Amino acid sequence: MRFNVENTDGNARAGILETSHSKIETPAYMPCGTTGAVKGVRWSELEEIGYRLVLMNALHLYLRPGIEIVSDSGKVHGFSTWNGSILTDSGGYQFFSLKGLYKIDNSGVSFQSPYDGSKHRFSPESVVDSQVRLGLDIIMPLDHCAPGDASREKIKQAGERTVDWLGKAKNRFNEIGDETQALFGIFQGGAHFDLRNEYLEQSFKLDLPGYAMGGISVGEDREEGEAIVREITPLMPSEKPRYLMGVGLPGQILDGIQSGIDMFDCVLPTRMARNGTLFTSEGRLNLRNSRFITDDKPLDPECSCGTCKRYSRGYLSHLHKVGDPGVLGLLSVHNLAYYKKLVTDARDAIKGQNFNKWKSETESRWAEGVQ
Amino acid sequence: MRFNVENTDGNARAGILETSHSKIETPAYMPCGTTGAVKGVRWSELEEIGYRLVLMNALHLYLRPGIEIVSDSGKVHGFSTWNGSILTDSGGYQFFSLKGLYKIDNSGVSFQSPYDGSKHRFSPESVVDSQVRLGLDIIMPLDHCAPGDASREKIKQAGERTVDWLGKAKNRFNEIGDETQALFGIFQGGAHFDLRNEYLEQSFKLDLPGYAMGGISVGEDREEGEAIVREITPLMPSEKPRYLMGVGLPGQILDGIQSGIDMFDCVLPTRMARNGTLFTSEGRLNLRNSRFITDDKPLDPECSCGTCKRYSRGYLSHLHKVGDPGVLGLLSVHNLAYYKKLVTDARDAIKGQNFNKWKSETESRWAEGVQ
Repeated sequence: MRFNVENTDGNARAGILETSHSKIETPAYMPCGTTGAVKGVRWSELEEIGYRLVLMNALHLYLRPGIEIVSDSGKVHGFSTWNGSILTDSGGYQFFSLKGLYKIDNSGVSFQSPYDGSKHRFSPESVVDSQVRLGLDIIMPLDHCAPGDASREKIKQAGERTVDWLGKAKNRFNEIGDETQALFGIFQGGAHFDLRNEYLEQSFKLDLPGYAMGGISVGEDREEGEAIVREITPLMPSEKPRYLMGVGLPGQILDGIQSGIDMFDCVLPTRMARNGTLFTSEGRLNLRNSRFITDDKPLDPECSCGTCKRYSRGYLSHLHKVGDPGVLGLLSVHNLAYYKKLVTDARDAIKGQNFNKWKSETESRWAEGVQ
Repeated sequence: MRFNVENTDGNARAGILETSHSKIETPAYMPCGTTGAVKGVRWSELEEIGYRLVLMNALHLYLRPGIEIVSDSGKVHGFSTWNGSILTDSGGYQFFSLKGLYKIDNSGVSFQSPYDGSKHRFSPESVVDSQVRLGLDIIMPLDHCAPGDASREKIKQAGERTVDWLGKAKNRFNEIGDETQALFGIFQGGAHFDLRNEYLEQSFKLDLPGYAMGGISVGEDREEGEAIVREITPLMPSEKPRYLMGVGLPGQILDGIQSGIDMFDCVLPTRMARNGTLFTSEGRLNLRNSRFITDDKPLDPECSCGTCKRYSRGYLSHLHKVGDPGVLGLLSVHNLAYYKKLVTDARDAIKGQNFNKWKSETESRWAEGVQ
């Protein structure tokens, strides 16, 4: 994996991330194909939008269909037929959603499958093993992400554990990792500046090829989370890609870019699309609003995605109302195209030394709202 | 609308049906886009398979989003963006599924919307009005389709009513119909040869541009239904397209073609695909069978559809198991491609005076089953 920052504008950076599967322009948003596909979307549609890097989830693939099956079926690329780059999250964050079904200790996590009740154990090492076998481009280590409203003590414990596990993950990756793969670091620390500083220093000493800030947008006070991103990002190594995990809405993406983040993932654009909420150049559009049934305009007249090129708000609103499964993909395609254009425009603005002005103009247009 | 039979082989016919929107090779199967879309499938995918004619349902469009909305949004073609030909069923058959919510009498049907309980009245005339406003290529009249296990008396009543309504529909269509549109006739009569003969003669006197046999595969004894298709089809006017409504599975399609049917529709290929049942050159494949998770072959190695060109049984089986909405479309694409190839191969066999031999060979391969 290679990464080069080509331009900066304040803290914002425009770069190129290169894996053995593709070159990715940064800042980059990664569509979430958690279970091995972006829900309802054809790979050809992602390719057409211009995506070259997607996120999947190693825990989900471990549970269904299983690491061995994927590994024996040409690894994730061969199995899924996605030919771009793939980053997998380890599942550390997902253990939140298995409430009561997991138990975390200093050496790993024990949990039950929500599908068949079977018992499993993840360690920092086993999670690297799985992801190496999956053949990923970028591997995220097992981390412990405490909820945003947890006590300082709990956040401290989780943050220290995350640093400890990162060392173990690195050792394991050095033993078995493939040179076409990259293990990133994650650091935690909640909304506590001193803890964040401590863990980032400790994890940066491990000299991994990229670093991710975890534990943002996990229930902490919003302004405190924003302040952490703003203050801590510039302290992350400038020559390596910086990844803000699980964030966010378009405004959060632009804030992150302004602070110097290079990579984002978030399920919201696709999940909200499936629920009928679309992002447009004029702000959000709620397709469930009955007035759109007679609206022959595309979702966003400024968008050139496959959905906007062909379909009207009226027809899409009808399909959403009657529950056609295909419309979930058509709407997701639009939101993903919107996110791609957003980060591409941001990149152009950075290269033109115009990022802050472009950011305020873009945000003020959202405030107008879809007429 | 124009129709020409170009070749015959026994009773089987190869022809061309031409509407103002497209030329369609017959025998033709029509994918069902009941609510204005083929569930989960992109129009571009249907176009790529080579479909030029789809079926929609005027009752469904009447209820949601409403005739006026569609009519004001560029009629069905403009609203849906499907640029090929469209035939709509009137909804006569669908009244079955509104059990208890409809009441039929000699001048029409009163029913309640299953969505909001609102009350509606359909007459043979109003159904023509709606379909003319929708801008369809082929309009099916309101018919009364009695269940296959109904008494002779009930089937007689429904069959006479259907003939009576057809006359009324024709009168209305002559007043308001567009020259780019065609009103087809429907005749009923259940599994009673004498009734079928009587109604077909009466309806043929109305000299409509195409005729449909209704009331087959609606619960009658299977062999009796097959005998009706076999004996009655050759009595339908030979210079006009013959449409067997709602039938059927691949074997029933081939039987229908052998008897001289030119057009078919059936929801089964798409509904079964969504449930994980695929048609292949070697017979049916049940994707829910756990052995397919490690199978890297395409659904049908002889198929060249977008799904078979890219995806393995293993990956599709995984997506089906995790409930990805996109796989419903990918599987439907395959079954629709299978049906298209089936009728295209049948057409080639008819042109080569080889239909019966090709039919037996094709059917015997199905018996082998997918290994």
